[in-house]
Amino acid sequence: MDISNSDRAKVLIQALPYIQKYAGQTIVVKYGGNAMISPELKEAVMSDIVLMRLVGINVVLVHGGGPEISDMLKKINKESKFINGLRVTDQETIDIVQMVLAGKVNKSLTQLMENHGGKAIGLCGLDGRMIMAEKKITSEDLGYVGEIVEVNTKVITDATSQGYIPIIATVAGGYKGEVYNINADIAAAQIAAKLGALKLILMTDIRGLLKDKNDEKTLIPVVNVSEVPMLKKEGIISGGMIPKIDCCVEAVRQGVKRTHIIDGRIAHSILIEMFSDEGIGTMFY
Amino acid sequence: MDISNSDRAKVLIQALPYIQKYAGQTIVVKYGGNAMISPELKEAVMSDIVLMRLVGINVVLVHGGGPEISDMLKKINKESKFINGLRVTDQETIDIVQMVLAGKVNKSLTQLMENHGGKAIGLCGLDGRMIMAEKKITSEDLGYVGEIVEVNTKVITDATSQGYIPIIATVAGGYKGEVYNINADIAAAQIAAKLGALKLILMTDIRGLLKDKNDEKTLIPVVNVSEVPMLKKEGIISGGMIPKIDCCVEAVRQGVKRTHIIDGRIAHSILIEMFSDEGIGTMFY
Amino acid sequence: MDISNSDRAKVLIQALPYIQKYAGQTIVVKYGGNAMISPELKEAVMSDIVLMRLVGINVVLVHGGGPEISDMLKKINKESKFINGLRVTDQETIDIVQMVLAGKVNKSLTQLMENHGGKAIGLCGLDGRMIMAEKKITSEDLGYVGEIVEVNTKVITDATSQGYIPIIATVAGGYKGEVYNINADIAAAQIAAKLGALKLILMTDIRGLLKDKNDEKTLIPVVNVSEVPMLKKEGIISGGMIPKIDCCVEAVRQGVKRTHIIDGRIAHSILIEMFSDEGIGTMFY
Amino acid sequence: MDISNSDRAKVLIQALPYIQKYAGQTIVVKYGGNAMISPELKEAVMSDIVLMRLVGINVVLVHGGGPEISDMLKKINKESKFINGLRVTDQETIDIVQMVLAGKVNKSLTQLMENHGGKAIGLCGLDGRMIMAEKKITSEDLGYVGEIVEVNTKVITDATSQGYIPIIATVAGGYKGEVYNINADIAAAQIAAKLGALKLILMTDIRGLLKDKNDEKTLIPVVNVSEVPMLKKEGIISGGMIPKIDCCVEAVRQGVKRTHIIDGRIAHSILIEMFSDEGIGTMFY
Amino acid sequence: MDISNSDRAKVLIQALPYIQKYAGQTIVVKYGGNAMISPELKEAVMSDIVLMRLVGINVVLVHGGGPEISDMLKKINKESKFINGLRVTDQETIDIVQMVLAGKVNKSLTQLMENHGGKAIGLCGLDGRMIMAEKKITSEDLGYVGEIVEVNTKVITDATSQGYIPIIATVAGGYKGEVYNINADIAAAQIAAKLGALKLILMTDIRGLLKDKNDEKTLIPVVNVSEVPMLKKEGIISGGMIPKIDCCVEAVRQGVKRTHIIDGRIAHSILIEMFSDEGIGTMFY
Amino acid sequence: MDISNSDRAKVLIQALPYIQKYAGQTIVVKYGGNAMISPELKEAVMSDIVLMRLVGINVVLVHGGGPEISDMLKKINKESKFINGLRVTDQETIDIVQMVLAGKVNKSLTQLMENHGGKAIGLCGLDGRMIMAEKKITSEDLGYVGEIVEVNTKVITDATSQGYIPIIATVAGGYKGEVYNINADIAAAQIAAKLGALKLILMTDIRGLLKDKNDEKTLIPVVNVSEVPMLKKEGIISGGMIPKIDCCVEAVRQGVKRTHIIDGRIAHSILIEMFSDEGIGTMFY
Repeated sequence: MDISNSDRAKVLIQALPYIQKYAGQTIVVKYGGNAMISPELKEAVMSDIVLMRLVGINVVLVHGGGPEISDMLKKINKESKFINGLRVTDQETIDIVQMVLAGKVNKSLTQLMENHGGKAIGLCGLDGRMIMAEKKITSEDLGYVGEIVEVNTKVITDATSQGYIPIIATVAGGYKGEVYNINADIAAAQIAAKLGALKLILMTDIRGLLKDKNDEKTLIPVVNVSEVPMLKKEGIISGGMIPKIDCCVEAVRQGVKRTHIIDGRIAHSILIEMFSDEGIGTMFY
Repeated sequence: MDISNSDRAKVLIQALPYIQKYAGQTIVVKYGGNAMISPELKEAVMSDIVLMRLVGINVVLVHGGGPEISDMLKKINKESKFINGLRVTDQETIDIVQMVLAGKVNKSLTQLMENHGGKAIGLCGLDGRMIMAEKKITSEDLGYVGEIVEVNTKVITDATSQGYIPIIATVAGGYKGEVYNINADIAAAQIAAKLGALKLILMTDIRGLLKDKNDEKTLIPVVNVSEVPMLKKEGIISGGMIPKIDCCVEAVRQGVKRTHIIDGRIAHSILIEMFSDEGIGTMFY
Repeated sequence: MDISNSDRAKVLIQALPYIQKYAGQTIVVKYGGNAMISPELKEAVMSDIVLMRLVGINVVLVHGGGPEISDMLKKINKESKFINGLRVTDQETIDIVQMVLAGKVNKSLTQLMENHGGKAIGLCGLDGRMIMAEKKITSEDLGYVGEIVEVNTKVITDATSQGYIPIIATVAGGYKGEVYNINADIAAAQIAAKLGALKLILMTDIRGLLKDKNDEKTLIPVVNVSEVPMLKKEGIISGGMIPKIDCCVEAVRQGVKRTHIIDGRIAHSILIEMFSDEGIGTMFY
Repeated sequence: MDISNSDRAKVLIQALPYIQKYAGQTIVVKYGGNAMISPELKEAVMSDIVLMRLVGINVVLVHGGGPEISDMLKKINKESKFINGLRVTDQETIDIVQMVLAGKVNKSLTQLMENHGGKAIGLCGLDGRMIMAEKKITSEDLGYVGEIVEVNTKVITDATSQGYIPIIATVAGGYKGEVYNINADIAAAQIAAKLGALKLILMTDIRGLLKDKNDEKTLIPVVNVSEVPMLKKEGIISGGMIPKIDCCVEAVRQGVKRTHIIDGRIAHSILIEMFSDEGIGTMFY
Repeated sequence: MDISNSDRAKVLIQALPYIQKYAGQTIVVKYGGNAMISPELKEAVMSDIVLMRLVGINVVLVHGGGPEISDMLKKINKESKFINGLRVTDQETIDIVQMVLAGKVNKSLTQLMENHGGKAIGLCGLDGRMIMAEKKITSEDLGYVGEIVEVNTKVITDATSQGYIPIIATVAGGYKGEVYNINADIAAAQIAAKLGALKLILMTDIRGLLKDKNDEKTLIPVVNVSEVPMLKKEGIISGGMIPKIDCCVEAVRQGVKRTHIIDGRIAHSILIEMFSDEGIGTMFY
Repeated sequence: MDISNSDRAKVLIQALPYIQKYAGQTIVVKYGGNAMISPELKEAVMSDIVLMRLVGINVVLVHGGGPEISDMLKKINKESKFINGLRVTDQETIDIVQMVLAGKVNKSLTQLMENHGGKAIGLCGLDGRMIMAEKKITSEDLGYVGEIVEVNTKVITDATSQGYIPIIATVAGGYKGEVYNINADIAAAQIAAKLGALKLILMTDIRGLLKDKNDEKTLIPVVNVSEVPMLKKEGIISGGMIPKIDCCVEAVRQGVKRTHIIDGRIAHSILIEMFSDEGIGTMFY
């Protein structure tokens, strides 16, 4: 990248209207996929978020950690059974989920954020009863797979009001002291809604919503949530995209102004989304 | 326990001078041993701490979790090698340590505390760069066994100032982004010193310092830290007691008014220590 | 009272749910009768209130002082005339009332509370225009017997917000600078209502409301205010109980959640009421 | 008083530099003598103090009440014995002193101040342990005549910080719960010193310090405290003036910038002292 | 002026009810006419305002400066053309207007106020976008003569909340970065309305509204705004009085309690208006 | 400038360490020369400063305005006489100076800053007695040319604490109410010193300090203030550079960490200086 200091200054100045627009607002970023694996992409995400905090944005980072959970289960020779894409979660499995998400992934991200100059605190749904869940009722027993019942954001806003970037692992507590594995996208959406966030950004491993899923040039940049049922009918929203987009729709319905599906494989995709008019990926409003 | 309401009222009133003495003070409790295993004892500890917080004491709970780490290592068929009582800690081991302490033990305690009505937050040495360590230099390479270099209590006092009970897992961060396993007693002592705590209470599985280690009636209730060298010479302080008592002495030297070794096997031993004149266990001053 | 330290700890822990329920709430205690005469009972009341304040309750103590007024009037050879139980109050008498209540009883209680470790301030209805009254209109002229027109609680909440226990003597000011003697139970009820108190506790010299007034075993522990007219008709509420219970009813009507008539002759009756499920005396809701 | 509105405006403007000088400062006024008896003078004093508070001065009013005490003692046929000008004070007498000062004089002044638009609170040495005393040791036993040991001004500054004018009756508490009669001038001086007051104003029934005590034209307007011993030797300071002037000297020694002996028989003497260059009475510095 | 200190004190005391009434209120003074030319009158106005601030009134001073603008235009040999009493304002003229009002008149008043002991800050409609205007549309082009579109009082209340007296020059900003000359009376009225001021005082060179404009004895002291149309019909309100009184009416309509037209040629006319019952000039309500 | 969004994001991220370094610090910018004349450069400066404020820097903008003063003097046909480069300043001239600096230049910059989204307030040395000066004593009388005696930054920090960018015109007040023309570079240096600024940036029309003044490639990027005397001797610092560099040296001596002479003719030179390692112009430390 060979950019003169003068052009650098211009770039900063062109960011000004975006900074003015976002100052004091809350942005929830659901972190996941490749952006959580590649060390370079991880560094880029950390930098993006530290910068956003410094220019006055209350950023909240929510993450899952599926691959790390699978690795750990494999290590203890635990075979996983899936029903409709959901892992059957017995006591031993939920212990591993909690350990990996709240202990390994979460605290390592916290350390990394601190090392990039952010003031970070690693939380999970058990801190301050942040996320309370109940057993998900399905035809077959899934064990400790939960559905969110309550989101208490006080522990999050207590942290942001003191200047911290809260990093949140999505395990939830139950009313009898049990622990539940919950969907991280849904948790992020509900946290964003409860916080009155301006934006919810879901980092994925795709370019966004594509008309032709094999052609990135057919990206649909903007979708009104009212168009979603039609897009589903047309098969444009299908497969793994359905739950993600349902999250986006739900968050918008509950008051989040804009939700975004962005491509976490592109370095600094968050900043590009935040600080350019054209953005990146698909925006739902 | 058959006590009349009138006698109950008298018991509460007799606690009054202790409550007045401790209100607004900081007490660090190092939690460990049987008190962390027996469900009844766990409940008792949680209640004790919630009560202390409610009467205006800033309680900070620090914990290790040796047995849970060993269980997990066994599960992944990892054999542990010990040198001078210290576990040789390779990358895979330190990952397990972090996961178990900061993810499982810590967050489960946080959940339990919340379920007893406390407002709790689960932290570790990586949050807000709370505990920074360097590799412990010994004749043989111990891997990620660290020595504390810096304690930053801001993330702790930020939490207590908002009414939270901070629960702290003792893993530490390194200056290059690595993670270290550190001694929980030493961590508790250094946190207590840095916070200017009035008391450090170490929960153990013994009655306290005994003149004759086979006879609990020979308990030494109070020790001036200047007497410690003599007690070592006499063999009264020996074996596993040495590092624990060294922690107590060091904490007192750094300004903690009183440190206590108490018997975690006795239900409500913390409250008994705090709210009676005779206390329980051995006090160092 | 021979209770082990372990049992003492259990008693404290059993108080925990009550402390949690009352923290931050306002409780108004109308102090009177034997509890204000016996030195042992006085000490017990002071301790009860200091403890309540320490565990985060905003306690407000309201008192009268009929016997001390009579003693002082006797000393100056002033004969008192009563009409329908109300003392005819000329200028000399109201001066004695003010002196005894606001100067002797009030300030001595303040001193006693301070000596028990409470931070106390002695107020009366004249401070900050707290209680404003008008002459009570009756068929015969009662002189300076007043009826409350206005209660201004700012001087009370200013004190509680700074951690003081306000102790309030029930003399009231008139709009032309005159002073009125007012009923202390009514004043306590109106102060409780205006403060939005959770509880009003009236200390008396009886066990509570009894079905058979000669048999304490017939105590009615709980009364819904809607049952009061029937209880009056049945003669269960009669005589001196009528005005006291009317106060309770009125306070409940104005928003005080619960009012209690308790037996001040029992040491620590306030604590027993506050910190046990069965309570003591009769509760109106 | 026939003054045009234009001249009235000029008078206000001429007060401006004084208001600027005193804003935010603390002034302690010892109220006594005729100014406490004549209704007109009382009204004038109340107005003066309300005005001072409104222009930003923290005024603290300290009062005694000798004549009212004597009246009350007479009413109960209690004969007073004096030794060296100090009333021998038995238990019955100290009760009357407390009642009259803290109950009658104090609260009536508080009511009067409120009726003049001031926000007032009536305190005595027993509130918040404000004045702690010990038995005065003399050759003959004087009973409950005390000497001040400690002055705690927190309850005073808590009140002034909330905008109240504290009105203080000078009875003191003892360390065993007893009450002492103390000299009001000395109490005012010590309170002024402890508060770091700019001025202490003692209201008396004389014009000030006179060279010839029979000729008011010989008033000495300003005295350096170092001149006091000489003035005593010359007999200019003599009799009842000695203890008053000793108070002034002591207050100056403890850091009060200026102390004043003013003539309370002149209406608005406080304002004249405060808002004119020539002042009134005698100033000690 | 030969007034005794005693009478001075009485004058101060008689100001007390006015000070109590105005404390914490906002008063907007439109300063102009002779009171801005005569050095003696200027000093008097400054003193009046400093005094008002000291007794707790939030005073806001708004000024124009017609004569100084004309002088400066003459100096640069710029001839002014007037249409319907409004100066045709080209770019060169508006530059002079801004310079003279915001640079000379405003900052010199600020300096003068500071020299009288007030804490003053000189602002104009361009600071913090306080006054936004649009080109006034008339049959003939008047150039940069504007009509107020928006008043943002944040920069004013930010200043008063820190104890400053804001002094405001009435030039306004346009939405394209241009500057407009606006009518100072209207600006003062709109600022008063937006601030929720208790009073708007317009200083003029007449005694007030006169029944017979040649006889000051026919002053109408109080006018209900509903009477204004009739007074116009009767010719009592006529000529240059019309726009001034329209301002008063408009301000009252927008919530200012009272507006006053007072005679700035009388020294201290503001104080006389504020601190006497009869006031001065004509009051509209 | 054709830069991809991805590169733009990288540029923002590379600014991160600078933003972290400057957050919460005070930077004083002396604005002048071509950067104040060219509309494009003016816009660039405004943007730079708004951006700096948004990322948490307390920016203070100090300006002179020589050319505008000369233009105005010419308009009124006032000939200026200069002695040693200082304008002889009679009353008419100082009036023009005040008008132009505090009324025209200052308020127009304030308006421009607001139009770029900054929250700005236009101040001069007369507001809040910010700059107090005395007549400069020289062999020949220079009239109202002043030397700074006192700098009171309260009015500046009151503004920055409320989020304003203070824009300061350098006219000063005298102790008798007169006004002085002062050197803007010196005023900026003294304000920076008094504020404890991290940096003072002087915008000029040269590249910086050059070894060979005809060759911009000989720029000296960094100078230790101790080298200045030698550089003067060598003639490298000469002519108009001498007073500018003396300002830099003086500011450093009084505690400003770094002072910079930068080239205002380059767009965004402030940002380039602030957000690159190599900076621009010459730095003194």
